[in-house]
Amino acid sequence: MQLAKVIGDVVITRKDENLTGIALLVVQPIGADGAASGRALVAVDSVGAGVGETVFVVRGKEAMFPWYPTEVPADAGIVGIVDRWDIG
Amino acid sequence: MQLAKVIGDVVITRKDENLTGIALLVVQPIGADGAASGRALVAVDSVGAGVGETVFVVRGKEAMFPWYPTEVPADAGIVGIVDRWDIG
Amino acid sequence: MQLAKVIGDVVITRKDENLTGIALLVVQPIGADGAASGRALVAVDSVGAGVGETVFVVRGKEAMFPWYPTEVPADAGIVGIVDRWDIG
Amino acid sequence: MQLAKVIGDVVITRKDENLTGIALLVVQPIGADGAASGRALVAVDSVGAGVGETVFVVRGKEAMFPWYPTEVPADAGIVGIVDRWDIG
Amino acid sequence: MQLAKVIGDVVITRKDENLTGIALLVVQPIGADGAASGRALVAVDSVGAGVGETVFVVRGKEAMFPWYPTEVPADAGIVGIVDRWDIG
Repeated sequence: MQLAKVIGDVVITRKDENLTGIALLVVQPIGADGAASGRALVAVDSVGAGVGETVFVVRGKEAMFPWYPTEVPADAGIVGIVDRWDIG
Repeated sequence: MQLAKVIGDVVITRKDENLTGIALLVVQPIGADGAASGRALVAVDSVGAGVGETVFVVRGKEAMFPWYPTEVPADAGIVGIVDRWDIG
Repeated sequence: MQLAKVIGDVVITRKDENLTGIALLVVQPIGADGAASGRALVAVDSVGAGVGETVFVVRGKEAMFPWYPTEVPADAGIVGIVDRWDIG
Repeated sequence: MQLAKVIGDVVITRKDENLTGIALLVVQPIGADGAASGRALVAVDSVGAGVGETVFVVRGKEAMFPWYPTEVPADAGIVGIVDRWDIG
Repeated sequence: MQLAKVIGDVVITRKDENLTGIALLVVQPIGADGAASGRALVAVDSVGAGVGETVFVVRGKEAMFPWYPTEVPADAGIVGIVDRWDIG
């Protein structure tokens, strides 16, 4: 999974019906040093994350587990909010 | 998922039969700042996107959900048209 | 999916038995401008593509759909031959 | 799979319930020469790895096999601790 | 799939039990010109490859097909040994 920072949200009115009512957030992957690394992406959110929080993003089909058995067409999902990480 | 801009379309006559009748669009991934980022790709479209629109692209098997149970051999699909995104 | 150009083929005698009789082609991904982009890869071919043709490559498990239910151990497959693409 | 070094751990209190009780470690992928290569990621651990150890990380849905049939929303998992590798 | 050269092997004593008895090789992806390209990875081997051979590596869940129905936690597998490839 990837550490990332929530940097914004997305407004989408025309979309796949299985995305209805699901929060979509823009997240910026970060490295172990907290610095931005790579391209921002959009993730579905099942844990109530907000802009500025550091989160934990899962990629792939696993992103839709929280909505199972609805087949949410998502490939990135926020599954945890990071309190802190320790590099030792 | 990835923010992207629709930049063109593709004409393919010889193809897997499960792609018949499905719109194929060329999309350019973009970053949170709207600038092109990385290599363009081809996505199936189930929401009626057009050239110039900003869209929301899902990667992987999830791309074929809109046509389920047809096994569309696709790994990228447009599942929403972005009205706007806010970076805060 | 990825636009790519077929640039060669591969001869493999010792291989997984589920690859027997399947054409394997070397393809070079290209960008929207037609220029090579990234590392060449090997794809299974179900549409009869030949060296020099521009094709449409799907990644992941979807690559083996044309041979289903045989479990072909492939992660890239040519599923269409591109006549042309238009960037507008 | 990827060779990686365990460099830290992550504290997450608000998370998907299927992650409860699972150790989450920060791992840094390394190349065949042992040098860091690419972005650090977070992996679930089923083998009891510790900071400083070299491990073996699997990506994708396979990461959750050790907890099956629980649907752990993970896309990276430590599945072995490397004693040594030999480049010949 | 990816062309790669086998460059070494890995010794792992503490590991997921479903990896027991499976050969693990370090492979270096190569481009169409035979030159190393990108980061080395570890692959399971079902075809008896050896150090110095050029092989054919499949990524993703497909890597475990040879051991099915055992759920081998692998995301890269050697599925063929390349005799030669021709770029034309």
